[in-house]
Amino acid sequence: MNPLTSTNPYFAGLFADEAITGLFSGAATAEAFLGFEMALTRAAAAVGQIEDDLARRALAAMTDFTPDTAALQADLMVDGMAVPGYVRQLKAHAGAELAAAIHPGATSQDLIDTALVLAIRAANAIYLSRLDALSAALEELGRTQGENVLMARTRMQAALPITAGHRVTTWAAPLQRHRARLEALRPEVELLQFGGPVGDRQRSHPHGDAITRLMATELGLSAPERAWHTERDGLATYASWLSALTGSLGKIGQDICLMAQQGVDALAQQGGGSSSAMAHKQNPVTAELLVTLARYTAGQLPLMHQAMVHEQERSGAMWTLEWMVLPAMMTCTGAALRLATEQVHAITRIGAAPSPA
Amino acid sequence: MNPLTSTNPYFAGLFADEAITGLFSGAATAEAFLGFEMALTRAAAAVGQIEDDLARRALAAMTDFTPDTAALQADLMVDGMAVPGYVRQLKAHAGAELAAAIHPGATSQDLIDTALVLAIRAANAIYLSRLDALSAALEELGRTQGENVLMARTRMQAALPITAGHRVTTWAAPLQRHRARLEALRPEVELLQFGGPVGDRQRSHPHGDAITRLMATELGLSAPERAWHTERDGLATYASWLSALTGSLGKIGQDICLMAQQGVDALAQQGGGSSSAMAHKQNPVTAELLVTLARYTAGQLPLMHQAMVHEQERSGAMWTLEWMVLPAMMTCTGAALRLATEQVHAITRIGAAPSPA
Amino acid sequence: MNPLTSTNPYFAGLFADEAITGLFSGAATAEAFLGFEMALTRAAAAVGQIEDDLARRALAAMTDFTPDTAALQADLMVDGMAVPGYVRQLKAHAGAELAAAIHPGATSQDLIDTALVLAIRAANAIYLSRLDALSAALEELGRTQGENVLMARTRMQAALPITAGHRVTTWAAPLQRHRARLEALRPEVELLQFGGPVGDRQRSHPHGDAITRLMATELGLSAPERAWHTERDGLATYASWLSALTGSLGKIGQDICLMAQQGVDALAQQGGGSSSAMAHKQNPVTAELLVTLARYTAGQLPLMHQAMVHEQERSGAMWTLEWMVLPAMMTCTGAALRLATEQVHAITRIGAAPSPA
Amino acid sequence: MNPLTSTNPYFAGLFADEAITGLFSGAATAEAFLGFEMALTRAAAAVGQIEDDLARRALAAMTDFTPDTAALQADLMVDGMAVPGYVRQLKAHAGAELAAAIHPGATSQDLIDTALVLAIRAANAIYLSRLDALSAALEELGRTQGENVLMARTRMQAALPITAGHRVTTWAAPLQRHRARLEALRPEVELLQFGGPVGDRQRSHPHGDAITRLMATELGLSAPERAWHTERDGLATYASWLSALTGSLGKIGQDICLMAQQGVDALAQQGGGSSSAMAHKQNPVTAELLVTLARYTAGQLPLMHQAMVHEQERSGAMWTLEWMVLPAMMTCTGAALRLATEQVHAITRIGAAPSPA
Repeated sequence: MNPLTSTNPYFAGLFADEAITGLFSGAATAEAFLGFEMALTRAAAAVGQIEDDLARRALAAMTDFTPDTAALQADLMVDGMAVPGYVRQLKAHAGAELAAAIHPGATSQDLIDTALVLAIRAANAIYLSRLDALSAALEELGRTQGENVLMARTRMQAALPITAGHRVTTWAAPLQRHRARLEALRPEVELLQFGGPVGDRQRSHPHGDAITRLMATELGLSAPERAWHTERDGLATYASWLSALTGSLGKIGQDICLMAQQGVDALAQQGGGSSSAMAHKQNPVTAELLVTLARYTAGQLPLMHQAMVHEQERSGAMWTLEWMVLPAMMTCTGAALRLATEQVHAITRIGAAPSPA
Repeated sequence: MNPLTSTNPYFAGLFADEAITGLFSGAATAEAFLGFEMALTRAAAAVGQIEDDLARRALAAMTDFTPDTAALQADLMVDGMAVPGYVRQLKAHAGAELAAAIHPGATSQDLIDTALVLAIRAANAIYLSRLDALSAALEELGRTQGENVLMARTRMQAALPITAGHRVTTWAAPLQRHRARLEALRPEVELLQFGGPVGDRQRSHPHGDAITRLMATELGLSAPERAWHTERDGLATYASWLSALTGSLGKIGQDICLMAQQGVDALAQQGGGSSSAMAHKQNPVTAELLVTLARYTAGQLPLMHQAMVHEQERSGAMWTLEWMVLPAMMTCTGAALRLATEQVHAITRIGAAPSPA
Repeated sequence: MNPLTSTNPYFAGLFADEAITGLFSGAATAEAFLGFEMALTRAAAAVGQIEDDLARRALAAMTDFTPDTAALQADLMVDGMAVPGYVRQLKAHAGAELAAAIHPGATSQDLIDTALVLAIRAANAIYLSRLDALSAALEELGRTQGENVLMARTRMQAALPITAGHRVTTWAAPLQRHRARLEALRPEVELLQFGGPVGDRQRSHPHGDAITRLMATELGLSAPERAWHTERDGLATYASWLSALTGSLGKIGQDICLMAQQGVDALAQQGGGSSSAMAHKQNPVTAELLVTLARYTAGQLPLMHQAMVHEQERSGAMWTLEWMVLPAMMTCTGAALRLATEQVHAITRIGAAPSPA
Repeated sequence: MNPLTSTNPYFAGLFADEAITGLFSGAATAEAFLGFEMALTRAAAAVGQIEDDLARRALAAMTDFTPDTAALQADLMVDGMAVPGYVRQLKAHAGAELAAAIHPGATSQDLIDTALVLAIRAANAIYLSRLDALSAALEELGRTQGENVLMARTRMQAALPITAGHRVTTWAAPLQRHRARLEALRPEVELLQFGGPVGDRQRSHPHGDAITRLMATELGLSAPERAWHTERDGLATYASWLSALTGSLGKIGQDICLMAQQGVDALAQQGGGSSSAMAHKQNPVTAELLVTLARYTAGQLPLMHQAMVHEQERSGAMWTLEWMVLPAMMTCTGAALRLATEQVHAITRIGAAPSPA
């Protein structure tokens, strides 16, 4: 939605995170959609909803399907989403005889939500790995500099001396809790979506639950008891996690900006930004960006909660709102984690060496 | 902060929830502050930081302490919080000799955060009980009317028939998850605060952790390994829970507003608001209020996440922001739960009786 | 909605602003409601919609009307607002014969919106007067200390020397623009509401516009061409003004917090908060509160814009949301203006005296 | 920041607005940067700050400058913005002798803010033109269908009959006010930025104001008395305008979604989305999208107000936040205006033809 932060070479790099961005590419969506449809056809055959032979031939046909994205984009504006056009293309590609073996009992939301969830699953692995890297960096900082003396500041005023290690611990400890929260949350969000047009799996009756379980297993997701088309509490809770983690990183960034002030001099670092006008400046660009990303991500969060007011069996308006918000939050969180680790590694001094006795 | 919703008799009742409101009264704060101070003196004596006899006499003196709230309010504007004045009064009441046995090693934030947490603990018990009442009401609704036929609506358009029970299940199921999330979250937020002026328990050294554990036990809270003065991730996660729960209730409210439309007629209910101008109107006031409370609570949430960018050892600005936001979110959540149950009980018909075969 | 900030003596004073709060009291609402009803009866008589004699007697009866607020509060929860009960009481007080001369062609929203607008008009006068006081304080600061030398900080890093006067000017200049914006905005929001049950003044036909103009003149408001029941752009724009002004004051507060840091020492002030644990501390409590109020007010703003998605001829849900949000924003703005002036007066030094040549 | 809405062919088209997006392209930034630098060199020569001949040769050199965007992107992450690298390249391109005639007295923020403002100016012209097109479409709808009968709905309940024209008027009237507000606001935001490193034009002394006026004239912008590096009230007010306009369009969208419900049947339209699972569905996709864009834009607004808490002479964190938020708001506003006009044109019936007498 923001060309400045996505494609403008004068700005975009500041906000990029290729690992997370790649999870939301057209290629990733194409792979997820086809993976969903093939898993569905396979599962429908396994439970006997469609004939094995028909399924086999449909799967073979799907294997070499490449969507016409120009046509998809035309349909997108008519239908409000790409799936109806995608399924029409897929069925046309397979031919009329095999069409019945494709997309049986499914609806657009099943594909789109599942594609989102597959991106979430992959992002979560990245977050966990980056959390570990950041924790290791902080542990190293604490080990090497933790006994330095730092003037504590409360309400921005000098208070009493603490150790540098004390402050580093307050930076590191929330990360462990965020990590544990994500582990607990994963089964609540890494959840196949399968409900059919109105979410009750009626068109797959009596095989809906079995199909769900088979598909979930194939796709590496959890199988929900029912479709969660309108139950967005899992996504809202996940968005809260993203924002809270980014908030903890913003606190680190804000502290570093304050510590790096001349006159306070509680921290030194390598690198830092230059100025087009003042050669002597060393700007704490990365630390500032952690504050920016925290404030931005917090700012997006209420929209994921507003989107919970999801009318009846499907709210086009609120579902679309999720697409505008959640991938941006996920990208910011990924970027913030990566930048925080870079930032911690760049610290060359925190506090002051304790004076000899 | 909003006189219209707190004291104006033409408006306030609409937003009141006496059970939650009472947890944030001056009386509740007074009880929490004194409870904290007495637990601290007791714990400090138990670990040998202060003499038993001194502690005993200080405790006796505290028992009949009644703060001069007019003086407190004068100090409030100078200090930005009531605790410094409160502690001065408490020590003066006990007398100079006993002053050393009062507030040893503690700081304002220890009292205020602990008082907040005691309110949260009490609120959580209310929420759990109200969640159970609401779940029971929905279960009853599903049992009596669940086989009725309801036209599913996707993107507000009539889609395919479902059972009324299907929609009721999508209302009820998130409540079970919110319940489980709160149970898991309680130990992360029902957490004693004790850190001393800069959060490192240095003034209680080497007894800080032991004092924390003793106090936590006495006050019925969990004992954190360290003070969480600047680690606000627990509170931010708790605020997210409040908002997500209220969002799930807002979805119920929005559905009921839509179902009660003439022409849609998917629901009938008792009561409902009258109009000053149109005698024939039956307004879905309670259902609307669920939407209002959901949107309001979601709107407050980012402020609790913005407040995570908490400078150094204490941010007066961000801590004060929590006071403006969290109690309001807690009150709305309590009100929404209560109103949702009233609303479900008021439903006399949902969908239409299935036609005889 | 937040008992902590409204009635708890340990907290509430910090957030109080009696001048603005008083505009939203029950007494103010009672006066506004009766003022509206009497102006309406008078105007309806003037245009010949009701008989002069009937109007005169109805006005006489209204003069000594005192609503039963306990009964109002009971009705409030049924109707979602106090007006239907209020009008029933008022008509009952006047007696059946005079009832037809009371509330002719009006609806609840006409009263409630007009009462809000009367509070807004009074608040605006307070804001303008406080803006002038703050501007005068800043001008005085600039005059007495403006030639002092101050180290400019960009990205929190020392940059180049500027004059103290330069920074003070960047604080003061936005206030002039906010003042001019408010003057331009007043006729767009200080607007009588009169539309009748569905907003088209049909029940007052053909006198609706004439009644509106007469009432507006009597109440000191502008007369809109049509009712603005569902056209909430004026209120949303007004809320934006509140937030933007408070944001400008938050910038002053944040600068002062940063300038008052030991090591930066770019500002000295009288007063400031004490600490319950550290006698040497001087906390910039007022400046912090300006930041808090700015962040809080900004946080409320989107709700007034979300509330613009106002369904059809009246949205109970979105209208109620305005009641939760706008008075709180108005109170914060009033408090921030008052505190900012106190803060500026408390500054005893900004920057450093220029060294003699 | 959100790859789904910017480059993914399965989603992006839904959110695209090429006219606005183009204003934030790399090409647009390049043109704005060079335009700024050439105007500055020209103005500095005109006031005698640099020699005419040097200026002429520097301008000639700049004419054929093409930045190395790969190098810019590398610098971007070090400096937190592209300008320092850009100016280095530009000076290197011109050669050491001419370097003094390039970027004299300017700072990064001068270029970036001015580039933003040039995009805003171009966007405003688009908004005004689209507002006119939408107003014309609504006027046409009112003219052709305004006498139809429509059941007014208050609190979603059928109230009393109104004319279709009445509701259309409540859609159209706010647009006239938004138009007038934008006209009034343009001189407050279409404002050259020129302040130098710390915003006081000291490095251009005594020519700063004259240079500003000359540059503003050349670039077609207004000339501010002082730089507005830290005075972001104009941008915040502009963001408020974007959100309020989009909110008014969201109200139209929400009404249309409700009117198009089967059972309510107050509106018919051409086109509309299909379903991958239900051939009979006609989804009000465009109307839903208006709701989505309104909620999203409202959700971004507080971040522009949070960003007003802009520390000292430049806040890297808050300035960067503006880049994440404002272009996205501007794109959504452009898309919403375009879609609203399409939506209104698609309406084939609103209300019902009045029955013959």
